[in-house]
This record gives sequence, C-alpha cells and structure tokens, in this order.
Amino acid sequence: MENKPLIFISNDDGVNAPGIRALIGLMREIGRVVVVAPDKPQSGTAHAITIHTPLRLSLIQKADGYEEYSCNGTPADCVKLGFKVVLRGKPDLLVSGINHGSNASVSIIYSGTMAAVFEGDMSGVPSIGFSLSDLSADADFKPSGKYVRIITEAVLKHGLPEGVCLNVNIPKATEEELQGIKICRQAAGCWQEDFDERVDPVGNNYYWLKGIFIKSDIGLDTDEEALANNFVSIVPVKFDFTAHAAIGELQKWNLDV
Amino acid sequence: MENKPLIFISNDDGVNAPGIRALIGLMREIGRVVVVAPDKPQSGTAHAITIHTPLRLSLIQKADGYEEYSCNGTPADCVKLGFKVVLRGKPDLLVSGINHGSNASVSIIYSGTMAAVFEGDMSGVPSIGFSLSDLSADADFKPSGKYVRIITEAVLKHGLPEGVCLNVNIPKATEEELQGIKICRQAAGCWQEDFDERVDPVGNNYYWLKGIFIKSDIGLDTDEEALANNFVSIVPVKFDFTAHAAIGELQKWNLDV
Repeated sequence: MENKPLIFISNDDGVNAPGIRALIGLMREIGRVVVVAPDKPQSGTAHAITIHTPLRLSLIQKADGYEEYSCNGTPADCVKLGFKVVLRGKPDLLVSGINHGSNASVSIIYSGTMAAVFEGDMSGVPSIGFSLSDLSADADFKPSGKYVRIITEAVLKHGLPEGVCLNVNIPKATEEELQGIKICRQAAGCWQEDFDERVDPVGNNYYWLKGIFIKSDIGLDTDEEALANNFVSIVPVKFDFTAHAAIGELQKWNLDV
Repeated sequence: MENKPLIFISNDDGVNAPGIRALIGLMREIGRVVVVAPDKPQSGTAHAITIHTPLRLSLIQKADGYEEYSCNGTPADCVKLGFKVVLRGKPDLLVSGINHGSNASVSIIYSGTMAAVFEGDMSGVPSIGFSLSDLSADADFKPSGKYVRIITEAVLKHGLPEGVCLNVNIPKATEEELQGIKICRQAAGCWQEDFDERVDPVGNNYYWLKGIFIKSDIGLDTDEEALANNFVSIVPVKFDFTAHAAIGELQKWNLDV
C-alpha cells in the first residue's frame, strides 16, 4: 500500500456530491486517497479564499489507505488546509471533481473545481480537474470512468510540464457515443447574462443571475468543439495571465512621467 | 456632459473603502461615472458569482453625471448587474479599485478587483484594475492619483488590444519616491501558506489562513521587480489559460482509446 501513489481529492459541489463519490471510487483503485472537500456546495466560488472567518475540518472517515474530511471553506481553502494540516506535505497527484457541469472555455474562471487544481499546480503538484457536461444531481458518471482512469494513469506515468495542469471536460454521452480524447485549447467565448427581476413580498426588487454561453470561436482545436463532437477535451492550463503579445504595443504608448 | 466618456467603477473592498472613494474622485474629473460596488468588503472572493441567493441593488446617490449603487453580491456580480440592469448597455471604460493591497504576480487569481476587470474585458469593454501595495485602512492614495489619471487617459485615447485588460499595481511610496511606469509581465511566484491553529472555548480546533508571498522569478521585466524599484507596473492581461506550448507534448502521450 505504501508504494501506491498518494492522491488528494477535492471538488466544489461538496463532499457528498455524486461526482466526487465517483471520483473517490476510481482513485481508490489507483492509490492511497485523502479527501478534503467543502461541507456544502460551492459552485461559482471560483478561486475565493476565506480570510475573514476561521476554517474548520471534520474527519468523516479513516481506513487503510483512505482518509476523508469536510471543511467549511472554499475549494482553494480545502487544498491549502489539506496539504498543510492534513497531509503535512504534498501528494503525488491532485484530482478535483468530477464537477456537475462543464468547465470548458471561459467557465474555467468561475470554477471552484479548477481553483482546487490551480492550488495544487501552484504548489508543484501534478493536478487535474474533471468535469462532466451535465448539471443534474443524478448525472451518470459511469461513462466518464474509463477516461478519468486513462488520463490519471498517463499523468502519473509522464508527469506534467512545469507549471501546467489539466482541465478535462467530458461530454454528456453514453459509453458508446464517446469518441475518444482530444488535446485542445480553451475556446474563446463569454457568458451572456440576463437577470430575472422579481419583487419581494415587501415590494423591493431583487435579481436572479442567469445566462447563456456564447461561443465566439470557430477553431476546430478548441475544447468546446471537441465536446460538441462527443470527445473528452483536455486543455493543458497554465497560470500566467500576461498578454505577452500586447507588451510591445503598450510600450509604444510612451507613458514616461 | 453627454460627450464625456461613461466610466463604470467597481471594487472588492466595498463601496465605502477609501480606495474606491479616491478612484471616484479622479474619474469624475474625466467623465460621467456610474458606481456599482459591493456593500461589504469582498477581498479574496476572486471571480465568485452568486447563483444560490438573489441579488439586490441600493441607490446611494444620483446627481448630474454621477450615479452610485451598492450591491449585496461579489465584484463580478456588480459588473454583470451594473451593465445589464443599471446601464442597460456598456460603458466606455471600466475601472476597478483602487484596491487596498497588491494584486501583482499570482495574487491576481484571488483578486475580486481583477474579477471585475475580467468581467468588463469579457464584455468587450476596455478595463483597468488599480491596486496600491498598502493593506492598511488609512493607506495614502494621493501619490497614486497622477498615475491613475495618465493610464486612464491613455486607455481612453488608444483603446486596448482585443481581449486585453490591464492589471496596474502601484507601490507604497511618496510622490517623490515614485519612479514612473513600467509595462511588465506577471512574475512567477506563489503564496506559501501557514495556518494559525487555535482551540475554541468548547475545545474544537479551528484555523486562520495566513501566508507569505514567495517570488520565484529573477526576471527584470516582471511586475514584482518594477514595484520593488518604486515603479508603477502595468501588466497587459488576457483571459486564455491555455498552456499552448504544452499541447504538442501532451499529444505525444497518444491517449487513443
């Protein structure tokens, strides 16, 4: 058991979500597993961290090669606290998910699932986020299993380039419909918001956020294109926001004071 | 007044923070101004959006060429709601801040200030985030004024390359000490966390997140390097997480199913 890789698991849908239960089952076949996940759903929390309230950890289960905790914080908090307080070190691999809903294209920036992955990546741990394009609570995670296993084992075998982590999205499809895996780039697009405006019983307005995703990218090498054709998409992701190509253009502005 | 640019302002320290009050004062000299900012501090909320509770807007002030609202949501919510419900359209420019504390290097990913900027950017609006490297409530925003004005006017004049927004950081320094402006790339680095472990009155453990920033970048062209030398840093930022250079490497894995 000691020779098996140590795999750290988190998510943003909360420790009891079917997606993380499926991921735990798959990872326990591959290695020793430590889970630290939010005690409640945290979708849309992005990379939020908790700095104004204290964090708490609750041990849920401990067995040979398996430990599971819930935490009152965000996915990023779970990873920070998990590495520092639970593991007191680093795992061989971090996996996050399986998220209920796609984190392809620009959705990555709102994603707590991917925040956990970035935290692992920033700590130098090979890290993978898995998401299934199905928001429903009773989503079927079974067809995802084969792909989660293949990708996890490839990362354990090859490692990842320095500073690179993976955003894996799986289309909602049956095992027969799934076509394979494509390495992609993030599609350009945006969420076009709308607000459902309502009036509460005392006469005050309130708003519910809703939106639809608009793809503005016609490339054939994007994650959205892969998903639309029933391929599992892998986007290698790095954590440098610099628009390097724009540096020269801005330097021409001559902002000398 | 109608010919003046329409400038939208938000932040993450809340509508009453000294930093946004300073920014509002500066922008009212340049254009018409609409403010939609969180009703409470939202530091560390990153790109969180509110999907499980309704959002509310409160009008605080309305005058010729000026409107100010508070919102119970995150900075990203403020921008979405501000554009859709308050403006019912798009402004000529979005500015966010002035943040109390640096958003240079990897701090950008935790930043609510920059989340507002990304929202503007994704909507096609030229957008700038301003941050001062001083966390204190009584930080002196006066030396920042000249630089905020120069950069804002340059963006209004030149526009920004498509999909690019700006992360501007200002060192804590006097007007005399400030050396000018540098166009930079995001420094590589990470936050090294530690947790202050305590025991509550009923005997349960709890943890406070704390950490120090570790720069792992010796380049002279980074934002951290500029700030350390009392320069204002401008990082042109884009919203593509793809590690393009890693795509070829991953394709060699032959993940054919």
